[in-house]
Amino acid sequence: MPGIQLQGPEVTFEDPTLIEGFPGVGLVGKIATDHLVRELEMDYYASVDCEGLPRVSVYRGGDGRARPPVRIYVSEEHDLFALQSDAPIGSGAVETVANCVTGWIAEQGIRPIYLSGLPTERDGDGQPSLYGIATGDETETLAEHDIDVPPEDGVVSGPTGALLNRAAQRAYGSLGLIVGSSRQFPDPEAASVLLEEGIAPIADISIDVSDLVDRAEEIREKREQFARQMQEVSQDESSQAQPLRMYQ
Amino acid sequence: MPGIQLQGPEVTFEDPTLIEGFPGVGLVGKIATDHLVRELEMDYYASVDCEGLPRVSVYRGGDGRARPPVRIYVSEEHDLFALQSDAPIGSGAVETVANCVTGWIAEQGIRPIYLSGLPTERDGDGQPSLYGIATGDETETLAEHDIDVPPEDGVVSGPTGALLNRAAQRAYGSLGLIVGSSRQFPDPEAASVLLEEGIAPIADISIDVSDLVDRAEEIREKREQFARQMQEVSQDESSQAQPLRMYQ
Amino acid sequence: MPGIQLQGPEVTFEDPTLIEGFPGVGLVGKIATDHLVRELEMDYYASVDCEGLPRVSVYRGGDGRARPPVRIYVSEEHDLFALQSDAPIGSGAVETVANCVTGWIAEQGIRPIYLSGLPTERDGDGQPSLYGIATGDETETLAEHDIDVPPEDGVVSGPTGALLNRAAQRAYGSLGLIVGSSRQFPDPEAASVLLEEGIAPIADISIDVSDLVDRAEEIREKREQFARQMQEVSQDESSQAQPLRMYQ
Amino acid sequence: MPGIQLQGPEVTFEDPTLIEGFPGVGLVGKIATDHLVRELEMDYYASVDCEGLPRVSVYRGGDGRARPPVRIYVSEEHDLFALQSDAPIGSGAVETVANCVTGWIAEQGIRPIYLSGLPTERDGDGQPSLYGIATGDETETLAEHDIDVPPEDGVVSGPTGALLNRAAQRAYGSLGLIVGSSRQFPDPEAASVLLEEGIAPIADISIDVSDLVDRAEEIREKREQFARQMQEVSQDESSQAQPLRMYQ
Amino acid sequence: MPGIQLQGPEVTFEDPTLIEGFPGVGLVGKIATDHLVRELEMDYYASVDCEGLPRVSVYRGGDGRARPPVRIYVSEEHDLFALQSDAPIGSGAVETVANCVTGWIAEQGIRPIYLSGLPTERDGDGQPSLYGIATGDETETLAEHDIDVPPEDGVVSGPTGALLNRAAQRAYGSLGLIVGSSRQFPDPEAASVLLEEGIAPIADISIDVSDLVDRAEEIREKREQFARQMQEVSQDESSQAQPLRMYQ
Repeated sequence: MPGIQLQGPEVTFEDPTLIEGFPGVGLVGKIATDHLVRELEMDYYASVDCEGLPRVSVYRGGDGRARPPVRIYVSEEHDLFALQSDAPIGSGAVETVANCVTGWIAEQGIRPIYLSGLPTERDGDGQPSLYGIATGDETETLAEHDIDVPPEDGVVSGPTGALLNRAAQRAYGSLGLIVGSSRQFPDPEAASVLLEEGIAPIADISIDVSDLVDRAEEIREKREQFARQMQEVSQDESSQAQPLRMYQ
Repeated sequence: MPGIQLQGPEVTFEDPTLIEGFPGVGLVGKIATDHLVRELEMDYYASVDCEGLPRVSVYRGGDGRARPPVRIYVSEEHDLFALQSDAPIGSGAVETVANCVTGWIAEQGIRPIYLSGLPTERDGDGQPSLYGIATGDETETLAEHDIDVPPEDGVVSGPTGALLNRAAQRAYGSLGLIVGSSRQFPDPEAASVLLEEGIAPIADISIDVSDLVDRAEEIREKREQFARQMQEVSQDESSQAQPLRMYQ
Repeated sequence: MPGIQLQGPEVTFEDPTLIEGFPGVGLVGKIATDHLVRELEMDYYASVDCEGLPRVSVYRGGDGRARPPVRIYVSEEHDLFALQSDAPIGSGAVETVANCVTGWIAEQGIRPIYLSGLPTERDGDGQPSLYGIATGDETETLAEHDIDVPPEDGVVSGPTGALLNRAAQRAYGSLGLIVGSSRQFPDPEAASVLLEEGIAPIADISIDVSDLVDRAEEIREKREQFARQMQEVSQDESSQAQPLRMYQ
Repeated sequence: MPGIQLQGPEVTFEDPTLIEGFPGVGLVGKIATDHLVRELEMDYYASVDCEGLPRVSVYRGGDGRARPPVRIYVSEEHDLFALQSDAPIGSGAVETVANCVTGWIAEQGIRPIYLSGLPTERDGDGQPSLYGIATGDETETLAEHDIDVPPEDGVVSGPTGALLNRAAQRAYGSLGLIVGSSRQFPDPEAASVLLEEGIAPIADISIDVSDLVDRAEEIREKREQFARQMQEVSQDESSQAQPLRMYQ
Repeated sequence: MPGIQLQGPEVTFEDPTLIEGFPGVGLVGKIATDHLVRELEMDYYASVDCEGLPRVSVYRGGDGRARPPVRIYVSEEHDLFALQSDAPIGSGAVETVANCVTGWIAEQGIRPIYLSGLPTERDGDGQPSLYGIATGDETETLAEHDIDVPPEDGVVSGPTGALLNRAAQRAYGSLGLIVGSSRQFPDPEAASVLLEEGIAPIADISIDVSDLVDRAEEIREKREQFARQMQEVSQDESSQAQPLRMYQ
């Protein structure tokens, strides 16, 4: 039976938040989540074994442990979960994965924060804009933390869009953070805005993003191939926000 | 379990009518339904969670609420429901969506009005023709409201055709309004004819369409990309009426 | 549950025959069946709601009633049913439709006459040849009515081939009438041969085909687009007979 | 329920053999089986109604009976069954057909002889080589009849390969005869070798193949189109043996 | 019911190991496993009858026995199983085959060693590097036998990746051996490294690989076509390890 498979010790949590890091436009969600896992030294907690996920095995340099490509990490101290994905999600799997992940989130009573880039011309000047949307009883959370709602109609697609769709259908509380990001390149600056202005205040954690900003060029290079792949896949596969008129 | 998910408070209705706004040729059904929702200040009532619908999330500018792309709105005062769709329906989903929506309509005892464009050369002179068809015990409704039956054989395809097919198969009462519309461009004039000459008398409501006519050019521009998409999809996906000899 | 949905009043019949009119090469079966429905003023009796049929709705000029594209008509006086199809059957639906229709025919104890064209060079001289094949206990019917058996090995494909296949597998009595017909154009002359020399004697009815012959040119024009479509589809979709060596 | 449908009278048999004639490289199995049915005047015994088989109907010149395209013939006198196929088997059907036919063979306790060509340069000089392979307790049968085992590693694909695979998986006794045959053209000489040196001794029958050899040119012409089709289909669809290194 | 079908006598084993030989980059796993079966004179033990495996039949030159393409061999003396595959695994079958094989391995309590090549520039100088990864309680085994963990992040795809994924999801003990190998050609040297430095110490067997090294050129030629095929298939089908940034 597919689902979320516990791989570490059980943890006690109070009112936990989950940060979702499926790859999408500008890789903003993935870069932010990967940074969180590393900076907060989160522990491998569970593997995501949903229908349609790539049946591959990943490993880290210097570590001999083979792991599934989509995993959940935990920091008991920060009351925080992070969903890390080392693989793109095929368009045929978006729906089953969203159902499967949502089922576990709802069952555990976790508040999810879904992350998406909004393709924007980024000339390096100024900081990317951050917007928030919400479902269920989380709509007031945005105002509490001074996160703006989007100025124009839009649509979120890809795994993130499907997860928000599931939450909206079930009227389950969830948050969606949308950041202006590069259409073509990995965008560590945008990821740092997600972390500093969205995730940190909402999840009530403190997170140092200087590394993301300092090593921006290096990260961009290392991730370039992945980002290019994300650009080539259809809008069903790659998480992104777009003005609604572009989608229809 | 898929179906129609209640998202607002329950309403009391007497003999309600539903206006269907899936996108099709000239976007006439969508433009008419969107206008109705706005003008009558209808309330978000339910989300449509049928198999095959796009798993995306939409939001409105200035509003932080994420919603599914196909929704039902209600006006208790006007005894009226409106089905609003912010996404095209893939051809593989037409059948399951028609079954799913029909099931709910029949269960609730709602009288549906399905809307379709009939591609016509429109040179701007004269008003587009409006025709009506019906299933079950609604066949006399057309004559009561002086709505002409079509002068030649025809076929309605796309989501609207599938909904009418379901009603015909089950001998359930329904109405189909067909309006001459542009083949290529969004056609707010045709949508206004649907509203004024078809929907308003049948549903016994009064609706001001001056905005649609005044802002026709603006609407056409804003919707152009969507209309172009509708043109490219197969006839199974885009709701339209055609002379029968063109279909076969 | 799919199947045949009664749409008119029940009828009493003794030993009824059904004429099948799915579109195929030269549109011979469709033209013959359409003519029969009109000339004998047959009544709309049931809709065919089998899996895989196009989910569209058709209507007649001057009549406001929306109907499914495949329907069964009846003439109680002539002990006759006619299956009229206003749509081509996709290759993926041929099998399910044949099973579904055969189930109803067998349950009702109806003797089916299936119709197919055999692509032939037709230079306008002489009348097209008519051949008959049969399954179950209908093999003697052909000789009784002086209908020749085919002179060479052949195969019938498309919906008609699938219906004959089902009858042969179940050893259920059925007749197949094969007429030489144009490969490319609608062939009202061939349809009139089917009616006069095959259907009329076997079903014991009298049918005036002068209209088909007189208006041949007009019919050809009106149906040309449909016939061209039939030519383009694969041999699985379009009913036709062919020499066996052409099929293998 | 799919399966083998009895179409003729029941027969009594002792230790029957079945010769399989699905089309493949050089059409060797089909030509041999067709010849057997005709020469031994075998009777139509059953139709093969397995999932995935073409839903068409075939007929013989001068005979008005419509039949399914894959049929089993019987000769009670020779304790022999023959599976005749008038249609190629699509690659998607190879597995279901092999399961379905194997189920019936095992249930009836029939010993099957599966036939395959091995593409070989054939310059007309010398007779094609015949090799035998076997599963279950039939491995000794080959030596008893002086049939050589193949000199090099190989693989049998297509319907014949799938039937042998099923027998090997179930450890059910079966024989596979492999004959060097033309890669491109129908090869009646190779079929005659199958009959004279393989089928006749194993099934203990006497069969005159002079007709196959005398009319070789005529058969080649008549079957050329079919053989060309077999060449074009993938190796999953067309029964053939190949050196293993060519397959991998 | 699919699964592993016993084809030889039952064996008694203590703490058995299974070497997996599905084809992949450089054919390293297949060459190593084929060598093991031959050198240790392992016996045909079971056939692998999982959904999605090619339904073909293979045979060895000089041996008349038809066998399925994927088989398990056993050496009771060495407490060893080997999975030999004579066919590539289609991408659609990777998941079902991994589930099916894993189910049997876990049920029998066997420790699997999965084998993969890591495409590397190989100029003939120096010996290819060998790395090990593990799941469940086998992580310490690598250090015990002085097998290095990989120096950089990576991903294993294809059948081997899916088998490791299954083991990781179920936290079942397994080992993965990864060897630098030619991207384009069969690589018997890399296979010999797998055998000598990985398989032999872990499975506690002694194996002579001189034949692989001596006949390297010959093996390369014979296997070239297969290796080329492996290169053409997608990364889902061909087992291989890659740096993680290449995969994403």
